[in-house]
Amino acid sequence: MLKFNEEEYRKSADLIRKARPIAEAAADKVAAEGYSNIFFTAVGGSLSPMMAIGCMSKQLTNIPVFVEQAAELLTCGHKQLTKDSLVITLSKSGDTKESVAIAEYCKNNGIRVICCTKNEDSPLALASDYVVPMKHENGVEYEYMLLYWIFFRLLYKAGDFEDYNEFGEQLCLLPENLLSIKKKFEEKAGDIAKEHYNAPIQYWIGGCEMWGEVYLFSMCILEEMQWIKTKSVTSAEFFHGTLELIEKNTSVFLIKGEGKGRQLDERAEKFIKTHTDNLVVIDTQEYALEGIDTKFRWIIAPTICSTILVDRLAFHFESYTKHNLDYRRYYRQFDY
Amino acid sequence: MLKFNEEEYRKSADLIRKARPIAEAAADKVAAEGYSNIFFTAVGGSLSPMMAIGCMSKQLTNIPVFVEQAAELLTCGHKQLTKDSLVITLSKSGDTKESVAIAEYCKNNGIRVICCTKNEDSPLALASDYVVPMKHENGVEYEYMLLYWIFFRLLYKAGDFEDYNEFGEQLCLLPENLLSIKKKFEEKAGDIAKEHYNAPIQYWIGGCEMWGEVYLFSMCILEEMQWIKTKSVTSAEFFHGTLELIEKNTSVFLIKGEGKGRQLDERAEKFIKTHTDNLVVIDTQEYALEGIDTKFRWIIAPTICSTILVDRLAFHFESYTKHNLDYRRYYRQFDY
Repeated sequence: MLKFNEEEYRKSADLIRKARPIAEAAADKVAAEGYSNIFFTAVGGSLSPMMAIGCMSKQLTNIPVFVEQAAELLTCGHKQLTKDSLVITLSKSGDTKESVAIAEYCKNNGIRVICCTKNEDSPLALASDYVVPMKHENGVEYEYMLLYWIFFRLLYKAGDFEDYNEFGEQLCLLPENLLSIKKKFEEKAGDIAKEHYNAPIQYWIGGCEMWGEVYLFSMCILEEMQWIKTKSVTSAEFFHGTLELIEKNTSVFLIKGEGKGRQLDERAEKFIKTHTDNLVVIDTQEYALEGIDTKFRWIIAPTICSTILVDRLAFHFESYTKHNLDYRRYYRQFDY
Repeated sequence: MLKFNEEEYRKSADLIRKARPIAEAAADKVAAEGYSNIFFTAVGGSLSPMMAIGCMSKQLTNIPVFVEQAAELLTCGHKQLTKDSLVITLSKSGDTKESVAIAEYCKNNGIRVICCTKNEDSPLALASDYVVPMKHENGVEYEYMLLYWIFFRLLYKAGDFEDYNEFGEQLCLLPENLLSIKKKFEEKAGDIAKEHYNAPIQYWIGGCEMWGEVYLFSMCILEEMQWIKTKSVTSAEFFHGTLELIEKNTSVFLIKGEGKGRQLDERAEKFIKTHTDNLVVIDTQEYALEGIDTKFRWIIAPTICSTILVDRLAFHFESYTKHNLDYRRYYRQFDY
């Protein structure tokens, strides 16, 4: 596969699996102490898996779950963020300004923080009560695994997710499954990139628990790393404006999820495929998950989307645009 | 002013003001009965003022306030939507499919609904417990007034907004203020439209309580009614992807609010103005509000934004693009 290091990917999987007991222990400790609500907070791409969890929480639990952009949370405040809250944050580098700032705010105000980050001596780790080590060198989708072990363990302890033991165990099988899925998607990735890399704008559509990935890929990958123009909109809201822009040759990407919201994706698909010849459908249902129960697929679906887009499709776009994914003209290049 | 009927606007203001006691009575009745949380739900542009209220609620109250896209809410469900909830919805026509469906779901499940809609015999009104008449022919910003009279009255009754009487009364002065603001903005609207109407894409940026208007104007006006390509992103999230697309000649619109999030808008402004020559700043602070207390300005700011964009700027874009704002090729033209 293009620019893929399988050995590193497998090694990263082991490092992530090693963090499972640490993630679960943090959840158990907080569950034992009690908490009134959960705040997931981060910025940019790190918000994406949190958006998915926020969406799932609506169907699963009465625990109040908030998903907040860290800079907005810090700047505007939130009356329900109190000493009884649990804050969960994530930043691989551990030095993302906004996430460090909100963790430090929490530390100063006696609010518990669990962070997922690479190094225990990073500013983010130092401001957190619990550090779940996020040591992967390869596989952004592994971030979901850590967050899921924390979140669904909390739900289990609250009596809202009785299948946790099965789920937590099956999550360990995800990396090998995602590896097979990458391989299966590889050829399609090349075809898609070739067809769409120079479209004047790409429309990215999806919703509910898949929305975070739609948002992330269009903004944090295509805009930031490829300077490709995009617009992202949910499958449900697409019908309240963006639909009018679809023409015969418009590049449209539709992400289909596997939860209840799938019917909203299908409604969008039905419309779009009759109005453009350039629709790409990314349907996670096309990919097998060995050893993972069907009832968990809707929860796993965003990780499939992540692995085939952020890893595979991104490199294939790069190979056509000749625009290095690592190059930035502004981001983190100077203070702003 | 271009395509503006002042007499109709003033008459609409009177009709909206007449609805104030009806809105407050509905709030009082629900407050007296008690409720566990508030769900604001709608689709497209009608979600915009609700997004603003959702943002404000974080700073003002411990009452759980949810803002949900109606199709997603209906399709996926929400564990916290129960017989103790209050649902507030809005659709001028009263026949918006998704809003009618969620109101009917609530009716069938014994959940109270307050709707804002034009006609008491519309499907939406018939499925609601309380109908707040929304009779304006002109002035989409008036929708805020009805929702504010409901929401802030509820907060007042809960002890979370002690200045309500003053606020509720001063809201009655808003229409005349917005009229003056429209007039003041008129020339600028023409200049902006002339300069930007044929840009290949427009970037719309703003956040917190202004985000709804940024979202609405870019999607429901520019995309739907002008077929202009846009991307909208919050002032805080702009720095996590979209910034990389800004070049010397990129058309960027920055909406500045007057609440705590203003510093995030200012941070974005500082960056953008050094990287493009085509930045338009819409700053509600430039416009006087006679008879309205300064402490309420951050709450009023989205209505200023609405009046100058959705009314004034939209017509000026139309005059240059020669694309009739009322023309749709798909929306509501057939079933989908």
